[in-house]
Amino acid sequence: MIVALCGGVGGSKLVVGLYKTLPPDSLTVVVNTADDLKLWGLNISPDLDTVSYTLAGIARRDVGWGIEDDTFHALEMLARFGLPAWFRVGDRDLATDIFRTHELRRGRTLSAITADICSALAVRAHVVPMTDSSVSTRLLVDSQWLNFQDYFVRRRHSDPVDAVQYGGIEHASPAPSVVDSITQAECIVLVNSNPVLSILPILAVPGLREAIAHASCPRVAVSPIVGTDAVTGPAGELMRLLGHPSSATGVAEAYQGLIDGLIIDVQDRIQERAIRDRGLAVLCTDTLMRNEQDRVRLASEAIGFARSLS
Amino acid sequence: MIVALCGGVGGSKLVVGLYKTLPPDSLTVVVNTADDLKLWGLNISPDLDTVSYTLAGIARRDVGWGIEDDTFHALEMLARFGLPAWFRVGDRDLATDIFRTHELRRGRTLSAITADICSALAVRAHVVPMTDSSVSTRLLVDSQWLNFQDYFVRRRHSDPVDAVQYGGIEHASPAPSVVDSITQAECIVLVNSNPVLSILPILAVPGLREAIAHASCPRVAVSPIVGTDAVTGPAGELMRLLGHPSSATGVAEAYQGLIDGLIIDVQDRIQERAIRDRGLAVLCTDTLMRNEQDRVRLASEAIGFARSLS
Repeated sequence: MIVALCGGVGGSKLVVGLYKTLPPDSLTVVVNTADDLKLWGLNISPDLDTVSYTLAGIARRDVGWGIEDDTFHALEMLARFGLPAWFRVGDRDLATDIFRTHELRRGRTLSAITADICSALAVRAHVVPMTDSSVSTRLLVDSQWLNFQDYFVRRRHSDPVDAVQYGGIEHASPAPSVVDSITQAECIVLVNSNPVLSILPILAVPGLREAIAHASCPRVAVSPIVGTDAVTGPAGELMRLLGHPSSATGVAEAYQGLIDGLIIDVQDRIQERAIRDRGLAVLCTDTLMRNEQDRVRLASEAIGFARSLS
Repeated sequence: MIVALCGGVGGSKLVVGLYKTLPPDSLTVVVNTADDLKLWGLNISPDLDTVSYTLAGIARRDVGWGIEDDTFHALEMLARFGLPAWFRVGDRDLATDIFRTHELRRGRTLSAITADICSALAVRAHVVPMTDSSVSTRLLVDSQWLNFQDYFVRRRHSDPVDAVQYGGIEHASPAPSVVDSITQAECIVLVNSNPVLSILPILAVPGLREAIAHASCPRVAVSPIVGTDAVTGPAGELMRLLGHPSSATGVAEAYQGLIDGLIIDVQDRIQERAIRDRGLAVLCTDTLMRNEQDRVRLASEAIGFARSLS
């Protein structure tokens, strides 16, 4: 069993590559839920849904989130009723939120509901939230703590961030099976999601950092930073916030003690030595995923790289 | 101010006629809520929405409920998740349910929320639920109490009914302004909705029957029964259940003490004498509403008839 740690759109590209590379049922994806939000009375889990839709082959090809060919009729009507409509939920996507909210209110757990959603979408990977508890990433912008989606979607991650916190993380515990999956994994892949917004919240769930630090299998990460910035999104700036450079080397620092190997882009070959000096194996390859073929290739390389380290 | 008592599709046709006949802001519609249901965790008020959509001019022209040109993408997805999909809620219509549910959970009343919905849809009539409390019509079918929508929509009102009850009605109180509207009305119109399923639940809210019985203004009803059956729906069978004949005369009996005049169809002219003998004024006219023109004509005749009784 391969375990991948993943956020939303960026990381799910590599996850779908892993899914297509591996035998069915042999991939567990532990997904960030610190971006989750409550809107219009509904429980929305953007990263979980992005991963599930992407694995199901129904994600929007243009933006990566939401469902292909979805309509936005409910959203238009919600706006007419004066509700906020900046978070773009399509009609089919909305049904997932209604289902999740309804089942949560019935007392079921997010992990059980996510398994149902994947089953309904014929996804055979095990998609698991990092926790069944509520965790909320908040960002300090101009002396004000913003909720994640407010910062990321409404303000288009354009504001300088002074601090990040994962609200509620101290009371969270890993979702059932997450620690066991890590303990029993053949290898662990920290995909190319934003370290600060996607991977570190997962690692901050009490017990998960330790489980990965003490895992006996090989653990590799794919650097989301190429050159001095992320392929998309604000990963670069947020790395600097943690005191790490915005570079593949900075990613190596951020994951210190948690990975055995780092996959970096060929453009960053010059950093290979510095990363090796930190005790990590390095694979230099083309990490940009322009299409399906790239995803599968990078996923195969990542698994081959990890296996070579065992 | 004219007050109309109304259910869903059938009655809303006459209500829209009244709305177009009267000056804006001078129509109050007291709407049955005993058909309301909770589905997928959402609070659905079919009759309120049918009246609001019809007055807003956005109701489906083919069936009368829902919103014209709506899509059903969320419903298809809910079905994929294993949720019941026999109650057909379109995507735009779903937004109304999400808004209502969200506002109810915030502690607002159904009447306040309904006012917001009408305002958003630019409806200038006062559409008011009969009560802000929860009331549920149940029908005894084959020794089993069915919820209203289960009987009406899922089973297409095809089962013989042995009894009807309005669950929770004894704890309900009229929504704010309903009794005042009745007391201060220029006239009251019980529209051609199903007496047992739409009008009698309104009258069964403690205080409302008395308010209408003691109102000093003229009160008229439009018979939903033409010949021996309703134009649509199970009104005929349910009249017999109450011990009244399925006829205009039966309607006169059901509303005994609550109305001063009854509008019956020209086809039922033969019953005019029997109804007059019950102390009621009678207007014989064409009560079938095939189009907008019919609705406005019948509404004008109803108001003229009522005014003639003052």
